[in-house]
Amino acid sequence: MAIITLTTDLGYKDFYQAALKGSILSALPTVNIIDITHEIDAFNIAKAAFLLKNCYHYFPKNTVHLIGIDTVYSSSNKYLAIKYRDHFFVGSDNGIFSLIFEEAPQEVVELNILQSLKFLHFPLADIFVKAACHLASGGALQEIGERTFEIQEKIYFRPVIEQNTIKGSVIFIDSFENVITNITKDLFTKVQAGRKFELHFKRGETINQLSWHYDEVPEGEKLCLFGISDHLEIAINKGKAGKLLGLKANDMVLIEFK
Amino acid sequence: MAIITLTTDLGYKDFYQAALKGSILSALPTVNIIDITHEIDAFNIAKAAFLLKNCYHYFPKNTVHLIGIDTVYSSSNKYLAIKYRDHFFVGSDNGIFSLIFEEAPQEVVELNILQSLKFLHFPLADIFVKAACHLASGGALQEIGERTFEIQEKIYFRPVIEQNTIKGSVIFIDSFENVITNITKDLFTKVQAGRKFELHFKRGETINQLSWHYDEVPEGEKLCLFGISDHLEIAINKGKAGKLLGLKANDMVLIEFK
Amino acid sequence: MAIITLTTDLGYKDFYQAALKGSILSALPTVNIIDITHEIDAFNIAKAAFLLKNCYHYFPKNTVHLIGIDTVYSSSNKYLAIKYRDHFFVGSDNGIFSLIFEEAPQEVVELNILQSLKFLHFPLADIFVKAACHLASGGALQEIGERTFEIQEKIYFRPVIEQNTIKGSVIFIDSFENVITNITKDLFTKVQAGRKFELHFKRGETINQLSWHYDEVPEGEKLCLFGISDHLEIAINKGKAGKLLGLKANDMVLIEFK
Repeated sequence: MAIITLTTDLGYKDFYQAALKGSILSALPTVNIIDITHEIDAFNIAKAAFLLKNCYHYFPKNTVHLIGIDTVYSSSNKYLAIKYRDHFFVGSDNGIFSLIFEEAPQEVVELNILQSLKFLHFPLADIFVKAACHLASGGALQEIGERTFEIQEKIYFRPVIEQNTIKGSVIFIDSFENVITNITKDLFTKVQAGRKFELHFKRGETINQLSWHYDEVPEGEKLCLFGISDHLEIAINKGKAGKLLGLKANDMVLIEFK
Repeated sequence: MAIITLTTDLGYKDFYQAALKGSILSALPTVNIIDITHEIDAFNIAKAAFLLKNCYHYFPKNTVHLIGIDTVYSSSNKYLAIKYRDHFFVGSDNGIFSLIFEEAPQEVVELNILQSLKFLHFPLADIFVKAACHLASGGALQEIGERTFEIQEKIYFRPVIEQNTIKGSVIFIDSFENVITNITKDLFTKVQAGRKFELHFKRGETINQLSWHYDEVPEGEKLCLFGISDHLEIAINKGKAGKLLGLKANDMVLIEFK
Repeated sequence: MAIITLTTDLGYKDFYQAALKGSILSALPTVNIIDITHEIDAFNIAKAAFLLKNCYHYFPKNTVHLIGIDTVYSSSNKYLAIKYRDHFFVGSDNGIFSLIFEEAPQEVVELNILQSLKFLHFPLADIFVKAACHLASGGALQEIGERTFEIQEKIYFRPVIEQNTIKGSVIFIDSFENVITNITKDLFTKVQAGRKFELHFKRGETINQLSWHYDEVPEGEKLCLFGISDHLEIAINKGKAGKLLGLKANDMVLIEFK
């Protein structure tokens, strides 16, 4: 059964996400629709990208991931369908794709399935759904758009690396108040090169040990580990690290290697 | 695959919506269950009606829409199943149907599938699910109830129309804080008759131009347009109109034509 | 179609529940995934147990109920798969099962499908999903674990029964602010033995009549009844009993029989 996932800022309290699902089922009655989330803060592209980047690969190949953020038509907002690592993505060319992908996509088309965009109030249902259902049914990318090689670039703040330090920042606080930074395991391991480290953050707090699991330290104690997302994460065993340590998105963290 | 949609005030934090879904799957294992929303404020019939009215038609014909609002049994609360524009609706006769339908339904029956209602604590699972699954399997309305021609009437506050003005009101603030009024596009166009207009609302604010899209005005600027629901909507490009303009449900708006 | 239900504390705002669903669909593309809830407060085993106990039986037999609470690996946290009343349950042996079950389960195995647990950051996807999909496909319990006869015991505070009184407590306030106690209908009926009763709770309030439905008393009036969960419930017709009566989880209630 074909799968379409949804990542939107439509919320669960309006009728918009239901209208979206109704449109999909009208076009492709047998599809399995899975919500990634509809609770992206309005227009928060970076957060949507972080979520999707960290879960799309759990789905079977050929899953179609529909991204409904910032979809209002404008001359500068192109609509794209993309094949990347054998998954399909449909969404606005607002930079989100460059935040999800770690390498060049296999193929990109600019959707051309509707001409008179001016009169569309709900492009999600009118255009994105058509594209997603076409792909979910096994249709080819070239049939719904013109091949293109440009996608808009956006970049997260990248960690700054020196010989003995990595300066990173918090990119996401999850619902457990785990604090996720922009420092990946690969980067950490490479710069560490076997040395000891000290992680510094707000209020002069430090951690100098990497844990594998939250409960390797006593309850209420802080720790750091590489979590499900493979990013360096600051947490408290059975506690809310973000709140208790006063950490927020964009706060700086510093790792010193010795 | 048959589809049953759910519109309830059961929330996502209790076990009630899960029990409802379990009941449906026990009666009809192959059905596709789609949440419209479970976050209707308790007993808010007008809001449930507005949401369902604006999304039911995106679903395929013969979809069954189960409405779980105000379902507690009482002698004055009849349970109905209705065919309207080739969709089916199952719910309490509390006036909600008159708020959803724009014309007389094709057929209405009062459910008679269970007799001893006194002892039912969960009529949603006990009665509504049986009716919905019967209809979703292609069963006839007459097999689950007695034909009736009365449904309870409720009406929204309708706009007051004079030669040069429409007095309307806010019926809904969506999650983006877009402000949706009870003035439909049809009504507006008819009264406007090609004339210029000025929309007045709280704090002496006015708008005299109709936009097609949110971003036709600069970011942070107010605008009005006919949105997905075909009702006149007051919005702010990438901003929260309800909060910023101080608009709430039931606030008055006035359109003057010149 | 096989069904897997999900009861977790993963929330709807992170990518974790989506990753979980993706893992399930990758392992078993045809399964029907139903959310019980993802909004359990972190580590709140008692609440998860109460919800699941009250809805699992609405689902068809052979449904697999995956419980994703407190799943982080530790030497003291065994992972179990259990057959109980022809339903399957997969989760951590943290006491939750003893709160759900009313009698000994049919069969219990300790999962052995993965050895090197130390390196797992997401046991839900790595272990629980494998077990759940195995069972949902009709596989045997013995193929994924070693039979065991011990499960960790936890008990709710049980009501204290004397000849003329039951002392109970509030275990749950639902989204409607109905106040659910730990006094079951069976227990009440047995101790009552036909006598009149008086229910006492906070602020000197009393109720001495059992209702069948919320609207047997005037709107805004308090009542008690046995609700969907078959537990004694204190409610207010169309009102929020918890808030209005000042009742919270763990508050005491007293029933006197005369």
